[in-house]
Amino acid sequence: LASSSDLVVPRKLKGFRDYNPLLARTRKRIIDTLMATAYRAGFEPINTPAIEYSETLLGTSNQETDKEMYKFTDHGGRDVALRFDLTVPFARFVAENQGTLVLPFKKIQVGDVWRGEKPQKGRYREFCQGDLDIVGADSLASDVEVISCLASVLDQVLGSGYTVSLGNRKILSALIHAKLGALTPAGETGALIALDKLAKIGPEAVLELLQQIEGARPEGASELLHILDSRDETGNSDLELIRGHLPANDETRAIMDRFQQTGSILSQLFAGSKGTIRIDLSIARGLGYYTGVVFETTINDLKGFGAICSGGRYDRLVSRFSRQEIPGVGGSIGVDRLLAALEELGEMTEEKPRGIFVAIATDDARAYGFQLVNTLRRAGFHADIALKEGKLANQFKYADKKGYPFVVTVGKDEMESQVFSLKNMSTGDEQKNIPLQNLPSLARDILA
Amino acid sequence: LASSSDLVVPRKLKGFRDYNPLLARTRKRIIDTLMATAYRAGFEPINTPAIEYSETLLGTSNQETDKEMYKFTDHGGRDVALRFDLTVPFARFVAENQGTLVLPFKKIQVGDVWRGEKPQKGRYREFCQGDLDIVGADSLASDVEVISCLASVLDQVLGSGYTVSLGNRKILSALIHAKLGALTPAGETGALIALDKLAKIGPEAVLELLQQIEGARPEGASELLHILDSRDETGNSDLELIRGHLPANDETRAIMDRFQQTGSILSQLFAGSKGTIRIDLSIARGLGYYTGVVFETTINDLKGFGAICSGGRYDRLVSRFSRQEIPGVGGSIGVDRLLAALEELGEMTEEKPRGIFVAIATDDARAYGFQLVNTLRRAGFHADIALKEGKLANQFKYADKKGYPFVVTVGKDEMESQVFSLKNMSTGDEQKNIPLQNLPSLARDILA
Repeated sequence: LASSSDLVVPRKLKGFRDYNPLLARTRKRIIDTLMATAYRAGFEPINTPAIEYSETLLGTSNQETDKEMYKFTDHGGRDVALRFDLTVPFARFVAENQGTLVLPFKKIQVGDVWRGEKPQKGRYREFCQGDLDIVGADSLASDVEVISCLASVLDQVLGSGYTVSLGNRKILSALIHAKLGALTPAGETGALIALDKLAKIGPEAVLELLQQIEGARPEGASELLHILDSRDETGNSDLELIRGHLPANDETRAIMDRFQQTGSILSQLFAGSKGTIRIDLSIARGLGYYTGVVFETTINDLKGFGAICSGGRYDRLVSRFSRQEIPGVGGSIGVDRLLAALEELGEMTEEKPRGIFVAIATDDARAYGFQLVNTLRRAGFHADIALKEGKLANQFKYADKKGYPFVVTVGKDEMESQVFSLKNMSTGDEQKNIPLQNLPSLARDILA
Repeated sequence: LASSSDLVVPRKLKGFRDYNPLLARTRKRIIDTLMATAYRAGFEPINTPAIEYSETLLGTSNQETDKEMYKFTDHGGRDVALRFDLTVPFARFVAENQGTLVLPFKKIQVGDVWRGEKPQKGRYREFCQGDLDIVGADSLASDVEVISCLASVLDQVLGSGYTVSLGNRKILSALIHAKLGALTPAGETGALIALDKLAKIGPEAVLELLQQIEGARPEGASELLHILDSRDETGNSDLELIRGHLPANDETRAIMDRFQQTGSILSQLFAGSKGTIRIDLSIARGLGYYTGVVFETTINDLKGFGAICSGGRYDRLVSRFSRQEIPGVGGSIGVDRLLAALEELGEMTEEKPRGIFVAIATDDARAYGFQLVNTLRRAGFHADIALKEGKLANQFKYADKKGYPFVVTVGKDEMESQVFSLKNMSTGDEQKNIPLQNLPSLARDILA
């Protein structure tokens, strides 16, 4: 160990943070709610490694993501990277286990991901995501299932209202094609990336980006933006207007019908919840792997905070690893984004311990004190014990600082007569010589 | 995305593994038990980043650990490393937050750590640890608290017996000094590393290692091993014999008395549990930062499996980062070691869903089906829904494969009359036309 003359500065890397007990407790509440909701809906838990072969992850999303990835060489000289999301590793998992999975397979995974992006308020380079995915069914039922289960988690965690904006990559691509003309794959990606920036940089800047795309019809760009901005009387994207701009064939009709039904079932399911579903075809989502429905969720009272939950359908992601096509749909709750939102909204709840603190009056009663605390804990109560030898007054001061409402005291006399004292920390009342066997029932009464 | 002609092989890195639902569920059971037990005992949750500055981690343990560390350069050119344990980052956390922590501070942290060691059966390069630590008190009470709380977790998770072996670095160092003579710090570390291998390579090989240490009295090595091997009539290390070999001064007496009391209180607390406490002063623990009590835990029925839970006192670890000395004691449950042990013992429990599956007879009843499943979930029941359009027979087959004991069926007729059908999958009995409002109470009855 270093001597104190050459201290190591205790510091974290830029973009990383520690979670103090208040943050960690609230974060655990989010994750516990997510897991319980997912289990109830038949999603099964899996875990995949944080580190993957680089080739597994590279080129699945976009150039930005590739650049932000934490890449390095491991002890065996292999090119490896930390995962930047949980979706690509899941596609690898599905391809590797396709013989044994009963399809459709519904999975829940919670884990940290890493992106070396510019740190901003509430955004870190390490963050936790909770993903629900369904593979093996290209159905509107699975689209609805993923989105409604994620919304149910938000409903339980958030105190305030939220909005799920629902788009569709297939429809958006068809519109781009109809308005900008036939583009190269790179051109289409460029258009999607430009549209993804709508909320951030505004329509005029996006228009400029669209007009710069090679081979794009210049007058098409403003038409496209106008269509995407149009709303019907309910405030949703004007789907009838959009239908009019797309080729009138069976494929388009099937896509539009399915999308409308998805929105309609979700609206029914959202009734009475804190959430609103909004059809917004300008939603593009940055990640390169989406092929159908896409969605993102914002909190009504936090304008400009960004999405806390998003996802979409990715029917071709597993084919990166397998000749068998396995369609998929999924969404992530940004656990740490949601945590940052709760901080911002003042919805973190400081839990004060509702428990009993055992103070030790004389050293020879320490074993007796541990027996007491052990009895309480085994009966399911929250109980703590003095850890520092010394004055009883200091032990009481510590119990008070930690917020314990009741202190049990034991010393040599109490041990010999098998009794204890009890002090109510808020009233100051103290009872002495309570028989030991009364402890559990007393705890039940005072902690009720 | 890659075309199917250039598939990426779906594979994991050597030494890493995926957790399928059975593994992930059992792992979650371990973590949930640990968290609940820790909360009940007043430990507070924290989280620290997976990535730290290399200098924070390097040189805290031993050369082996330094070599196994995943080190790389980040986007900003900083030397960084993945954490190899949760103790060193916690010491950094304590130093960084010493102004705000109420001491003694009791913390629980669960997280993954990485070591590029040789993969072996049940040992991986990425593994989860659950750590309990207490900083700010150099007391036997905090030693007892950490060990008894960890044991309580094992008691709830394991079906079989386990043994906690308790040693003490201070006593072991005093014995080394008394028998091998005054060694250099490197020599003492060498002796501890050699003794740490006792269980693995046997006393003869350790004797040879001890005799090679520079400056060590050659006849002292076998005496040392003999003393460490001696047992009293209860099978514990012979503490009276050991006292006789140590200098008879107040300091030694205080250390020995405290150690004996620690063992004695723990024995009382272990009474009636699945655990046994055993005093074994040959326990050295590989990590360089221990300064007092050390312990490791093995499962009685798994000889040769290695430790599943270990730790000790590290009074000088925080001083690496701070001029203020803050004593500490802590222990880790090797969550993934324990998981591997449960696999080995056949104590994984396959949980079949106790829930209701909703089958959709006609497409137009899909929204109605989702309403049903939503009602059930909101009432706290486990409920799933058909995700694939198609024959009812296939939906039943899928529900059966997934293990659902009951299937509710709805179609256009059921929707119009606001009723549903219910099939018991094990008896084959089917009831039709049950009124919708009976659903929650019916679920309560059949899933009881």
